[in-house]
Amino acid sequence: MSKRKSTSTAEARKATAQSLLKGLGESVYSDLDEGRFPSLTLASRSVRNIVYDKKLQQFILGATTVKKSSGNIKHIRPFTQLVWLAYFAKKLVDEKRTSTLRDVFYSAQAFDVEFQDQSESDELITDLEVLMQTAREGMNIYPEERSAIFGNMTIEYTVPGYEGKKADLSANPDGVMIGPALTTAEFAETDAEMVIAIEKGGLFTRFIEERVHQKYKAILINTAGQPPRSTRFLLRRLNQELGLPVGILCDADPWGAHIAMVCKSGSAGAAHLRELTTPDAVWLGVWASDIVKYKLPSDKLTDVDIKRLYELKQDPRYTEKMWHDELDVFLKIKKKSEQEAFARYGLSYIVDTYLPEKLQLMKSA
Amino acid sequence: MSKRKSTSTAEARKATAQSLLKGLGESVYSDLDEGRFPSLTLASRSVRNIVYDKKLQQFILGATTVKKSSGNIKHIRPFTQLVWLAYFAKKLVDEKRTSTLRDVFYSAQAFDVEFQDQSESDELITDLEVLMQTAREGMNIYPEERSAIFGNMTIEYTVPGYEGKKADLSANPDGVMIGPALTTAEFAETDAEMVIAIEKGGLFTRFIEERVHQKYKAILINTAGQPPRSTRFLLRRLNQELGLPVGILCDADPWGAHIAMVCKSGSAGAAHLRELTTPDAVWLGVWASDIVKYKLPSDKLTDVDIKRLYELKQDPRYTEKMWHDELDVFLKIKKKSEQEAFARYGLSYIVDTYLPEKLQLMKSA
Repeated sequence: MSKRKSTSTAEARKATAQSLLKGLGESVYSDLDEGRFPSLTLASRSVRNIVYDKKLQQFILGATTVKKSSGNIKHIRPFTQLVWLAYFAKKLVDEKRTSTLRDVFYSAQAFDVEFQDQSESDELITDLEVLMQTAREGMNIYPEERSAIFGNMTIEYTVPGYEGKKADLSANPDGVMIGPALTTAEFAETDAEMVIAIEKGGLFTRFIEERVHQKYKAILINTAGQPPRSTRFLLRRLNQELGLPVGILCDADPWGAHIAMVCKSGSAGAAHLRELTTPDAVWLGVWASDIVKYKLPSDKLTDVDIKRLYELKQDPRYTEKMWHDELDVFLKIKKKSEQEAFARYGLSYIVDTYLPEKLQLMKSA
Repeated sequence: MSKRKSTSTAEARKATAQSLLKGLGESVYSDLDEGRFPSLTLASRSVRNIVYDKKLQQFILGATTVKKSSGNIKHIRPFTQLVWLAYFAKKLVDEKRTSTLRDVFYSAQAFDVEFQDQSESDELITDLEVLMQTAREGMNIYPEERSAIFGNMTIEYTVPGYEGKKADLSANPDGVMIGPALTTAEFAETDAEMVIAIEKGGLFTRFIEERVHQKYKAILINTAGQPPRSTRFLLRRLNQELGLPVGILCDADPWGAHIAMVCKSGSAGAAHLRELTTPDAVWLGVWASDIVKYKLPSDKLTDVDIKRLYELKQDPRYTEKMWHDELDVFLKIKKKSEQEAFARYGLSYIVDTYLPEKLQLMKSA
């Protein structure tokens, strides 16, 4: 294995989160010291303030801000909730513990901080992200883990009890889960030349069995459907820290296309964050035009599929010609196919024939 | 680590599957040689032939059989499909490759064997299981992987390219995926004294962070909801091959209870199999009575929850007093709680207070 050492980032991320959260606390204290009602000002997340940035290739928040002031009786509740959340996040980061969104909702009750339901606490956690300009994962608040990774790469964990411990991501042929530990691990060594993210576990397993990681020097990621944010964060890290091209392979339907798009350009809901997108990621397929080209077994598009395609056609993320053309092909042929449809030509076909053709796209990207 | 070597089982399982599948082929050939229309006789899977066996604590198939004969024009289609499936499964086992249910459906098209849709091929795969008295996993046909495992255990892989390679299941603090490789691995060494299966990834991560694997010498499994069959198979192996008690921790609602029950007693749909159940598994909680005892934050049961509880009360798997009583408590208090609700008492409470009380149940089981 050649050595490709990434700069140490986990400690830096932790220090950043701590200093941002501390800053928030200090601003509240200084308001109080100077006899002012403490307040917090953050970018507005209203639909009118979400705009698409062509250069960044993602949605961003515009210039409109909202102020939550403890001097306004209507704001006292969200202001208090937000300050408690910052306190709780700071505690998590300090103690090197992680929490889920659900845990946060219940933990609030231990402090007699009220959230009506989890959607209210989730909303406030997003406000905290906007305020801190940091993804909640950086504040140790994680989603459920689902995705997995496999490949010729040694990582170095940074979580408590595992500091400096290395793990070989090719040691377990079913893959390793992508959770808080993996998301924050350092990349120690790899000879990989690309990353391939795959929508489904079945094909992920097939790729490992067919040695795609060796044949194409690829790190493989099972996104398990629309990937959790921590997986999108990891894709970006692999791309930015190691300079590896990222390809995404999904079902040939509007939902599959959108998995690729969200990996690439993120979602409107995370318009306040820059760390969840991989603008250079390449949609390898399965394209609508591949259904025709490879004569794949297919199903008819449903009305819901077709409605979704018309929505995507209006979406600013899909303006690039190639993406737009593929949406049109779907609408023209009115068919969809799954990744597994290639099994029609034998179990190895997708690896031996389809993949090499598609990987050319990553070289020219 | 003390040594606890399990007998080599992967090779034995492979040999069994091969000989069973070969036997099927031979019976078809010998019918032909002797001038008879080949036929296959298997236990009926009709609802009337599914009975609950109290001693085995699971559903089994009764004495009624069905015969699929190539001499009957109505049977030619399913007979051909079944023989092709056996051929395809034999090929998978011989070549040490795995396949998903979806792959099998598409692969049939390469052989011009027709299945109307995947539900038809799934049905026939179940028929093949009945005929072979072997789970499809033993014939290398797997579901999508979702679950994960973590703990002080060294396993030895048996899949191609990994024969004899060992892996330490405590090396990756987010857990390792449970797929074909892990399901067929040998248990090499462990000092574990129990297995705890957990319904949700969030709590699985919490348990690892709180060192439950060390404090209680437990192997931890994230079932990710109702566990895939391969995970149930692994739970049974850990119980039977290593003699480890298995405890299951789920949400306090009818769906959580049923996750525990399916791990313990299996499903009616798998009445033809004995390798997916762990009759000695213990439902650790969260019980309906725990909602009251621990004053957990709770939600009201929905109409669907209540309907489900009445169904479970009629289910022969729930006749044991303790299970039946808990169903009644749900109906009385009309409340449900999630595992995360314990966060109300701080993030460590579930590990430091609740778990030790519950683990007593496994000692007395």
